[in-house]
Amino acid sequence: MKQVAEQAGVSISTVSHVVNKSPDARIGDEARSRVEAAVQELGYRPNPIAKNLVKGRSNLIGLVSDSIASTPFAGQIVHGAQDEAWKRGFVLLIANTEGNAEVEAQAITMMRGYNVRGILYSTWNHRGTRLPAGLADVDRVLVNCFAEGEPAPAVVPDELGGGLEAARMLLAAGHRRLAFINTTSPSPAREGRLAGLRAALREVGAAESDLLVLDARPEQEGGYAAAEEVVRWGATGVFCHNDRVAMGLYDALRERGMRIPEEVSIVGFDNQEVIAGHLRPPLSTVALPHYELGVRGIRALLGLEPVPPTGVLTVPCPPVPRDSVAPPGSASPRAAA
Amino acid sequence: MKQVAEQAGVSISTVSHVVNKSPDARIGDEARSRVEAAVQELGYRPNPIAKNLVKGRSNLIGLVSDSIASTPFAGQIVHGAQDEAWKRGFVLLIANTEGNAEVEAQAITMMRGYNVRGILYSTWNHRGTRLPAGLADVDRVLVNCFAEGEPAPAVVPDELGGGLEAARMLLAAGHRRLAFINTTSPSPAREGRLAGLRAALREVGAAESDLLVLDARPEQEGGYAAAEEVVRWGATGVFCHNDRVAMGLYDALRERGMRIPEEVSIVGFDNQEVIAGHLRPPLSTVALPHYELGVRGIRALLGLEPVPPTGVLTVPCPPVPRDSVAPPGSASPRAAA
Repeated sequence: MKQVAEQAGVSISTVSHVVNKSPDARIGDEARSRVEAAVQELGYRPNPIAKNLVKGRSNLIGLVSDSIASTPFAGQIVHGAQDEAWKRGFVLLIANTEGNAEVEAQAITMMRGYNVRGILYSTWNHRGTRLPAGLADVDRVLVNCFAEGEPAPAVVPDELGGGLEAARMLLAAGHRRLAFINTTSPSPAREGRLAGLRAALREVGAAESDLLVLDARPEQEGGYAAAEEVVRWGATGVFCHNDRVAMGLYDALRERGMRIPEEVSIVGFDNQEVIAGHLRPPLSTVALPHYELGVRGIRALLGLEPVPPTGVLTVPCPPVPRDSVAPPGSASPRAAA
Repeated sequence: MKQVAEQAGVSISTVSHVVNKSPDARIGDEARSRVEAAVQELGYRPNPIAKNLVKGRSNLIGLVSDSIASTPFAGQIVHGAQDEAWKRGFVLLIANTEGNAEVEAQAITMMRGYNVRGILYSTWNHRGTRLPAGLADVDRVLVNCFAEGEPAPAVVPDELGGGLEAARMLLAAGHRRLAFINTTSPSPAREGRLAGLRAALREVGAAESDLLVLDARPEQEGGYAAAEEVVRWGATGVFCHNDRVAMGLYDALRERGMRIPEEVSIVGFDNQEVIAGHLRPPLSTVALPHYELGVRGIRALLGLEPVPPTGVLTVPCPPVPRDSVAPPGSASPRAAA
């Protein structure tokens, strides 16, 4: 800036007014032209570090993620957060901790050192967590997790609503003999989706005695292993804890020569991109709103979105109907024979 | 720092020496204790922005990615880059452009404004690209892509070597009647994997006339649709352009009552986490080394890894043998009947 001022023959503050387009400054047209020419010639770029240091603020927002790579989900949170941050003139400073507490503490210290506007703290799976010490006295929003014990604003998926939507797809097609292959891991997803399923049964007055609930490993292998009990139970509609479980169930039912959806209708959860739409038949499922969680997290941090008094904002999990649900007993006589 | 100096009754430069642990400074034990007590009491944190501004450098490295969310792959590049950057005392400033040229230009300007040590420019799929204007005069390394026209250091997967490894798995089991379901999209992956397959045929003196090469959409639907021609050709071993294609081929062969690997052996590519190890049988494949690309990109940027005179460093794609390859004709007589 000093060089620009010297070359243009003006003061440094004049350069600053021109470069920063200060609305109140009275700069003559000629001086302005000389500054602009010098800026061009010297390739001067305003330095946001210096600017932030002077103004005591930055256009950075920190995003601490416990896993950016292990699942496609964390990437969607980053994507949504970044789109919304850019829209508001902010840039994300991202740190991936892979759950390492030391890396996490360092990342938060570093972000605070860069004077971030605030910090989003996100986890790849929806869960309760302890608020890291470094986030106690800074603007922060938890994304896909919530603070246990202490209050902190949080944005999480509506697991109960998602379970309700999943079950409604089966019930609306007429299924009453149902199985739910849930996960073995205690989590808001496990409890919430089951509660949603039960609420859906109550909506239509269906008997809980016609529901089989199983716990299985939340991967293809879990769905495959659960098939035997599901078939023995005579379920015509199966809600799977996630799309990977549904994929394993598809394999097991096909090995038994059973057709989907004619003999068994199946609904998944997650809407996992590389799987759900590409099974045969394409899987009806419920989407986890990770992109939206990132967007809402930024909005809550910037005060653009009110967080309810509970401190927790829930984001809907929308149904994604495809071709794995049909009315019960829709197998043709030839196939059933 | 001024407040710390006042409270401790020392000069600002003494505070600086103590805080920065300057090796050459001679500070009395008593003054040092007073400074440390004041730092503690006032909760002083050194400000890296101010420090960088003074020293004219930062501990930031920029990472521009064209897609962090659309595939699980970009996340692995970020993960590898971040692990290596942290190890070297650097932090990643990540921008996700989703291929938007304006966002990309803004991101690069912003990163340069923050005085980054250098910039990694990465793409989710391996391809040639034009070097963005903002990267012309800054330390930069391309990751998973290479500059067309102008020279720039690049780190990319060894597609040819990967194709060689994939084909060797089938050839080593004794297969000679082969099919390759390649992709329809022209790319280094398409050309490289085919060249590797041909090199593998030459290694064992196999005839090219026993190889069927098909182009298909690089998703499950492409593999499913290709099955008919593969079966008509009588291939006993099939190399698929990626794991998603292999998954579609599995579905189509099973519908025909054919068994994998007893009747048809299959090899994929990518080692896509949510699919490859969870098919029935688990898929033998070749891994795309995205994590390693991120690590090597940082190392090349920091001058810790020599980049060959071609400007392009290739990273091996290692084979991941599982259970989808067996010798031809290993179906039991009962099953064949």
